[in-house]
Order: sequence, then C-alpha cells, then structure tokens
Amino acid sequence: EFKKGVTASSQPMNGSGLKILIVHTRWNLPIVEALVKGTKDKLKAFNVKEENIVTQAVPGSYELPFACSKFMEVSSYDAVIAIGVLIKGSTMHFEYICDAVSHGLMRVQLDKGIPVIFGVLTCLTEHQALHRAGIAPGDDHGHNHGEDWGAAAVEMALLKYRSQ
Amino acid sequence: EFKKGVTASSQPMNGSGLKILIVHTRWNLPIVEALVKGTKDKLKAFNVKEENIVTQAVPGSYELPFACSKFMEVSSYDAVIAIGVLIKGSTMHFEYICDAVSHGLMRVQLDKGIPVIFGVLTCLTEHQALHRAGIAPGDDHGHNHGEDWGAAAVEMALLKYRSQ
Amino acid sequence: EFKKGVTASSQPMNGSGLKILIVHTRWNLPIVEALVKGTKDKLKAFNVKEENIVTQAVPGSYELPFACSKFMEVSSYDAVIAIGVLIKGSTMHFEYICDAVSHGLMRVQLDKGIPVIFGVLTCLTEHQALHRAGIAPGDDHGHNHGEDWGAAAVEMALLKYRSQ
Amino acid sequence: EFKKGVTASSQPMNGSGLKILIVHTRWNLPIVEALVKGTKDKLKAFNVKEENIVTQAVPGSYELPFACSKFMEVSSYDAVIAIGVLIKGSTMHFEYICDAVSHGLMRVQLDKGIPVIFGVLTCLTEHQALHRAGIAPGDDHGHNHGEDWGAAAVEMALLKYRSQ
Amino acid sequence: EFKKGVTASSQPMNGSGLKILIVHTRWNLPIVEALVKGTKDKLKAFNVKEENIVTQAVPGSYELPFACSKFMEVSSYDAVIAIGVLIKGSTMHFEYICDAVSHGLMRVQLDKGIPVIFGVLTCLTEHQALHRAGIAPGDDHGHNHGEDWGAAAVEMALLKYRSQ
Repeated sequence: EFKKGVTASSQPMNGSGLKILIVHTRWNLPIVEALVKGTKDKLKAFNVKEENIVTQAVPGSYELPFACSKFMEVSSYDAVIAIGVLIKGSTMHFEYICDAVSHGLMRVQLDKGIPVIFGVLTCLTEHQALHRAGIAPGDDHGHNHGEDWGAAAVEMALLKYRSQ
Repeated sequence: EFKKGVTASSQPMNGSGLKILIVHTRWNLPIVEALVKGTKDKLKAFNVKEENIVTQAVPGSYELPFACSKFMEVSSYDAVIAIGVLIKGSTMHFEYICDAVSHGLMRVQLDKGIPVIFGVLTCLTEHQALHRAGIAPGDDHGHNHGEDWGAAAVEMALLKYRSQ
Repeated sequence: EFKKGVTASSQPMNGSGLKILIVHTRWNLPIVEALVKGTKDKLKAFNVKEENIVTQAVPGSYELPFACSKFMEVSSYDAVIAIGVLIKGSTMHFEYICDAVSHGLMRVQLDKGIPVIFGVLTCLTEHQALHRAGIAPGDDHGHNHGEDWGAAAVEMALLKYRSQ
Repeated sequence: EFKKGVTASSQPMNGSGLKILIVHTRWNLPIVEALVKGTKDKLKAFNVKEENIVTQAVPGSYELPFACSKFMEVSSYDAVIAIGVLIKGSTMHFEYICDAVSHGLMRVQLDKGIPVIFGVLTCLTEHQALHRAGIAPGDDHGHNHGEDWGAAAVEMALLKYRSQ
Repeated sequence: EFKKGVTASSQPMNGSGLKILIVHTRWNLPIVEALVKGTKDKLKAFNVKEENIVTQAVPGSYELPFACSKFMEVSSYDAVIAIGVLIKGSTMHFEYICDAVSHGLMRVQLDKGIPVIFGVLTCLTEHQALHRAGIAPGDDHGHNHGEDWGAAAVEMALLKYRSQ
C-alpha cells in the first residue's frame, strides 16, 4: 500500500569534499535550533566535515533569500540550506511571507546556479512545527525534517551535472 | 457532447532524432515510478531511442527547476520532462511548493529556450495521485498522465519553430 | 445603468498590414476550435489577410508561453493570441496552471516587446467554457470571446507607440 | 480615533513641469471614464498642464503593463497611471488577471525606472466599482479614486530621488 | 514551553557606522508614524546616528518597491526599511497589493544587493494594525513591530558577508 514519503537515494553519497552553508532564522528559535541540529547531524552522517558546515543567522524568513544570495557571493558553497519556521497568525503576514520567501529562494538558486534547499516550515499551528522538528510534546515527537534537508543538500551538491 | 481531454496531434511525430531529459523526484516514489514508466513508454512509441532518454532523480519537487536548469547547461536536450507528485498535507507546504515549482519550471524553459513539460501532480488526496498514475486500487486504475507528458515532450521538441 | 463589458475602439482599425500569430492548445479542442474561429473571423473583419494569420498548436496551456516566445523569435509578428481552455478539476492542477500561464504570458510580451493577448479561459465548469466560446447548449449559446481577442490583437498591434 | 485613509503630503507639489501618461482600459468604460476624469482633474489641480497629460486606451487590464512599457519607450514621462476596472465574474478570470496585472505593472516600473500608479480597481461587485469612481447610485456616490491616483502620480514624479 | 517570537541576536550590534533609509507610506499615517517612531528608537538604541537615518514618504504601499529602488540608486545605504499598513477592505485591493508589494520588495533587495526589511503590516482589522504598532486602545496596547524592523535592519546591515 502506498505511503507518502521520500525514498533514499540508492547512489553512494560521499559529502567529504563538500562545503555547505546553513542560513537560519532566529524567529521561533527553539524549533529552528532543533531543525539545524537535525540538518547538521545528517550532513555529518554523509561525511561532510564539521569545519565545512558554515552556519549563519538572520532575524526572520523574509531575510533568507537575500542572505543566501549574499553569502554565496563572498564564499563558494556546494549547496545552501535555508531554515525557518513560519506559523500562521491572525493577520495575513504568514501567507505573504511564505509566498515571497518560497519564490525568493527559488529565484536565488536559479540566478546563482547553486542549489538552495527549502528548509522553511509553513505551519498552521505550533504543534505542526514542533512535530516537524521532532520535538513535539507527548508520545509522538514527530520527525525532524532537518534530516531530509541535510540529505537533500548532499544529494543536490553531488548531482551528476557537476562532474560533466 | 463535450468531454474534457486532449486531442492527439494530427501531425506525424517522429521522435527518432530527439534527446529527452526526464528529471523526477523520489518523494512518493512508487507513484513517480509509474509516471516515469508511462512517460518513457510513450516516448518510445514515438520512436525516441532508449539511449536518448536520460533520467535523473532529485529528492523533492522544489529541486526540479534547479536540476532541470543545470542539466540543460551540461548537455543538449530537445525537451525536458519534470515529474513529481505533491499531495496536500496538514501544513501549507503543499501550496507553497506547488506554486514556486510551477513558476520555477516556467521560468527555466523561458530562460533556457528548451521546452519543459510540467509533469507534476498537485493532488489533494493520495487516491488522486494513484489514479493519475494509472495505479489506483479497485476497478478504475485511472489514466497514466506520464503518457500525455511523453507525447507533449515529443510534440514540443518537434514544433515548427525548430526548423525555421 | 451600468453594464459590464467592453466598448469598441472609436479609432479606425485597419489590420491589412498586420501579421498575427495564434497559438492554441489541443486540450478541450472542440471549445478551442470555436474560439480560434471566432478570433480569425474578427481578425478578417478588421482586414487582416488570411495568409497573414499563422496558427500553431501545442498540447496544453502550460506550453503556451514557451511556444509564443519561440515562434516570436523565428518570425516577425505584430501581435500574438494565446488560446486555451482550462476547466477546474478535482486536483489543484487548474489553479497552478492558470497562475503560471497568466504570469508566463505576461512575461513573454514584456520580454519580447510584442503584445500577447490572453485568450485563456479559466472556467469552473464546462458550461462556462462552452458559453464563452458561443457554443453552449440550450437557448443561450453565449458570446464567443475569440471575437474580443481578435479585436484586441488588432488594436494592440496598431497602438500609437508603433508609429513613433 | 483611527480612520483608514491617506494623509495628503505636506510637501509643496508643483506639477507644472511634469509630463504624465494615463493608460486606461475600455472594459467597463463608463466607470473608467469617471476615474480618468477624476485623475486628470487632480493632475491639473497640481498644475500639470493639459497638454502634458497624454491619454491612451487599451482593451482590457491584461494589456496595461505591455502598453505602459511600450509608451515609456517612445516618449519620456515623469509618471504613468494605469487605470482599469476589474469586476468578479463567475469564472476565475478576475483572479488571474488581477494577479498578473498587479505583478506586471510592478515589474514595468522597476524595469523602466519610471513610477507606475496602480489605478486598477479589483472589485467583487459593480456597486463597489461605481462607488470607487464616485458615481454610485443613491445618496452615497462614493469617492473618485482617480483623485488619489493623480495626486500619487505627481508626488512620485517629484520624489527627492529625482533631484539628486 | 514553546512560545512564538524572535530571539535577539547574541552578536554585538554596533550601528554607529551605518546609514539607514526608511521609506514609509502616508496611507493610515497615524499607525505608520507610530511604527516609524518605534523603528527609529530601536535604530538609535543600536547606536545608529540620527543624521544617518533618512526618512522618505510615499502615498501607498504599492509605491514602496519603486521608491526603495530609486533612493538606493541616488545614495548609498546599508539597509532599507519599507513601512506600510494595509488593512483588508471590501474589494480585493488588499490581497493584490499585499502580494505585489511583498514580491516587489523581495525583488528590489535581490536586484540591488542591499537588504530591505519588510515593514508592511497586512492586517484583516484596524485593531490588528493598531496592536502591532503598540497603540491599540484598551489595556493591551500591543507590541510596536517597528522595533523588530529596526533591529533587523541593523543586523542585516552588519551580516558577516559585508566584511569578507
């Protein structure tokens, strides 16, 4: 029976030669920190060296595309992971930020030619965000999506277009 | 009486000289694989040679525009087919990814001048996705949309602007 | 009393020197063909010569911006009319295609400097589409919007910026 | 107590040296004409000379960004005002046109470096449109938004970036 | 227990060498003025000098991206803060302006390479806007979001990409 989810790549993924940039927000930092940790753990599991994982912080998600773009200009990275946590509030701020940021990060990777992983949670409730960071209260802590983003960054950095 | 659907081209479509790139996700891979198979079968039915069908995988749909763009830069293709399966979940992730990816693939084909077929299912239920891959359980397995995408790729690759 | 609708231009519109490109889809072809016919009839009513109306087909609406863009590069047109019929289905395909195509056609005309008429029906029901093609069953066949698009193409092709 | 609305600029605004372009639609022309008149009256109230107000017409709102862009290329304007009236109908045409046009006019002003005032009403009812043109039936005729657009055009044309 | 909000940067933030541009609207000016004041107070708290805070006004939010872009061209700023207050009305004006402006400001900062803080409230009620400007009536005056924008501007202006 079909179950939603991602199937791991069957390609060998050796990240030992990669340099990865993580840009994360400080809005909703406790959740973001869990996501950053999950991301880093997975990067290291694919042999990315600790000293080749650069982490930068910005205030909120709207700052992510600009910061990713600028950091790409001053140093060379094989992939970038943009991490933030947006949670629906009573105004329409959530909707417009989510939309502008998802398009902005798409633009940045196409403009710069370096993959940007969309590590931005766009949640309707706090519980959804906690659950996707693997730190939900109760019995089901959920799955830390940072792990998926770390794996995706390594995979995109190693895509075959690079060796051609 | 009118019935929604696509009418096949009356033009002869000989894909024997074409080189086609398929980029597909590994999210919801069982459905994606059925779609990729339907796509390839149709490409071959239009005489595209097996060795001229290149298949690449990325983790999720947000990676499709970047990957299509980069692969276009390292090799010459007559058309690209981007295949993914997005299914509505409880957060707003579905909406923002669908929107950014549909615009991103539009941008890539206009920037690069090579047609990109939108082979991304944007479904509200798993059943919808299975049905559009021709593998729904029960009596009505549905129609494999990959067949439409394969035909569209051959047609777009042969459009008359190419010979002028 | 006010009634929605378009007022015809009071300028003399002589299309006898114009070359017009129509790109239409083959999705929902019976409706599309009625719209193309309405468009052509109106073009001819403004003295556009039959041999100066070029018609090309693509599979679906997502292909329209790319095809318009490419055909503009291989031949010189005074205006382009992109014709398609999108009808709401059970997935979100309709919404994402409509959005990407309306933005894509906007981009193409601004990039290329040649007017593109938005001849894409974005309907919630089949009846709405039939009615806007002037072929609805029953007593009220509706109005063929192709006529408006043909007139708009001639007008945009003759806009005063051209003679300056 | 707070009341929604715009506060007039306290800067002296002398439009006597300005050249202003108005591009308006002919869809829903009676409303559009009232808006154009309100706009012109306000321009003149700021001393813009009648002969320096150029008015051009296009069929519908989707044509506004292209026309504004082209007219900017053939003559020099200090500001452009794009005027149209979109009213919700039974299909999704309203939504996609509103969205593409609001983004298109934004693009044009950023690309060209000349301010474009968004004079497009995006109304759910005819009454809303009539009311915002100051010609609603009954006791409350409403406020002619063209006046705001005229004032905005003069102000944007005189913004301090121009003298630096 | 998790609580939504932003965690202050642990980096020392010395804005004494920075030049900051504030562009604000005059729509809903009483609220905007409170937000501008909150922004300036926070900028000064980070040692930005009064004479290095330049404030410009435009009529409405749709004018913000253009004005930010142009002012960036005539003088050198380390960060720009775009401040406006949009409140849902009975037409769809709110939705289309919010969308175009959030994308427009994103484009401007990516095009220009100077950070633009999104200081635009997108509120469904007047009370929401007053509350986010810290001037709501009653016991809970709310939090002045201008303070967050001021801090974000200083932080983005000092991001490490600048010294590399």
